[in-house]
Amino acid sequence: MTARGNLFIVSAPSGAGKSSLISALLKDQPADMQVSVSHTTRQPRPGEEHGQHYHFVNQDEFKSLIAENAFFEWAEVFGNYYGTSRVTIEHTLAKGIDVFLDIDWQGAQQVKKVMPESIGIFILPPSRAELERRLTGRGQDSQEVIAGRMAQAVSEMSHYNEYDFILVNDDFDKAQSDLLAIIHSQRLTTASQIHTQNDMIKDLLAD
Amino acid sequence: MTARGNLFIVSAPSGAGKSSLISALLKDQPADMQVSVSHTTRQPRPGEEHGQHYHFVNQDEFKSLIAENAFFEWAEVFGNYYGTSRVTIEHTLAKGIDVFLDIDWQGAQQVKKVMPESIGIFILPPSRAELERRLTGRGQDSQEVIAGRMAQAVSEMSHYNEYDFILVNDDFDKAQSDLLAIIHSQRLTTASQIHTQNDMIKDLLAD
Repeated sequence: MTARGNLFIVSAPSGAGKSSLISALLKDQPADMQVSVSHTTRQPRPGEEHGQHYHFVNQDEFKSLIAENAFFEWAEVFGNYYGTSRVTIEHTLAKGIDVFLDIDWQGAQQVKKVMPESIGIFILPPSRAELERRLTGRGQDSQEVIAGRMAQAVSEMSHYNEYDFILVNDDFDKAQSDLLAIIHSQRLTTASQIHTQNDMIKDLLAD
Repeated sequence: MTARGNLFIVSAPSGAGKSSLISALLKDQPADMQVSVSHTTRQPRPGEEHGQHYHFVNQDEFKSLIAENAFFEWAEVFGNYYGTSRVTIEHTLAKGIDVFLDIDWQGAQQVKKVMPESIGIFILPPSRAELERRLTGRGQDSQEVIAGRMAQAVSEMSHYNEYDFILVNDDFDKAQSDLLAIIHSQRLTTASQIHTQNDMIKDLLAD
């Protein structure tokens, strides 16, 4: 048994409920699923733990990682570096653990280029009216601010067909069960099974 | 909502438990799943019903269907014709019903050529020893007969990697739940969702 985890890219516009779905999925800390943890050079905030919220590294370490081509993608924001480590993800996948990458369509395109076997899941809200309701928040924002959020959401959603699967988050339990079915089924693809069941298949096909 | 069903090709060597898995799946006659029913020119046997076990047609009707290119595949066996109707399957899929096609790897290759979006599932027994046990039956067959069955099974299994998914039928309940996860997930692919959620997606992306 040489199981290999799958890499899931999960994208969604604000208001689709992506974070809640991923949190619910990992709530009981399943041994075979993890969300990807980014590297950063910024200081930990109170309560943040190394390896759980971020991999905290210094600038020299981060630059070495860039030089080693260790990142799928990285960016400098206000003097701090942030990056998604391909190498860390590869190590986790090699242990048979599925990894979830919570990124936007631009990040998704970069990851797909490097790992075409990654599985893209796009989460949609159930209707425009419901999306507007979710983005309106508690009525404290101006019409302009809300219109800006809607435009941003529509722009993100226009990339839905670059993903392998689409979840509609209308009923939360249904969306959760849809997500689990995708994860379950992806362990049964021929590519996954050839890893997991390699010895058994050899035994079955021996002359 | 313009749902479209998926076409599943299910293949396996004798002894993998394919028929039991498909029977269990359709036991409660779900509204959204059907096994494909072949056409034949042979006479119905006692208990066989038109439209359930076969579509019983006469030779002229069958030959018209061949001329109309209605079959994925057809064959003449001992003077009787048998065929899998692409047109019948298309009608069922158009109603949003998933169709299961219980065929061997040769049939699977033909169907994949005509409908590349069909989803191939190959069912494997859990080990060579267990396969031998299942093919030995009640101990009434000679070593040659059993060896012949094993050779036939190994030959069928050598095509496992032409399929999209692999199920290992070790524990029946687990295999059943695996099969359901595949069916569930395939309704969530972008291609399926673009059919099912077409109006909703248009509404979400409107300017």
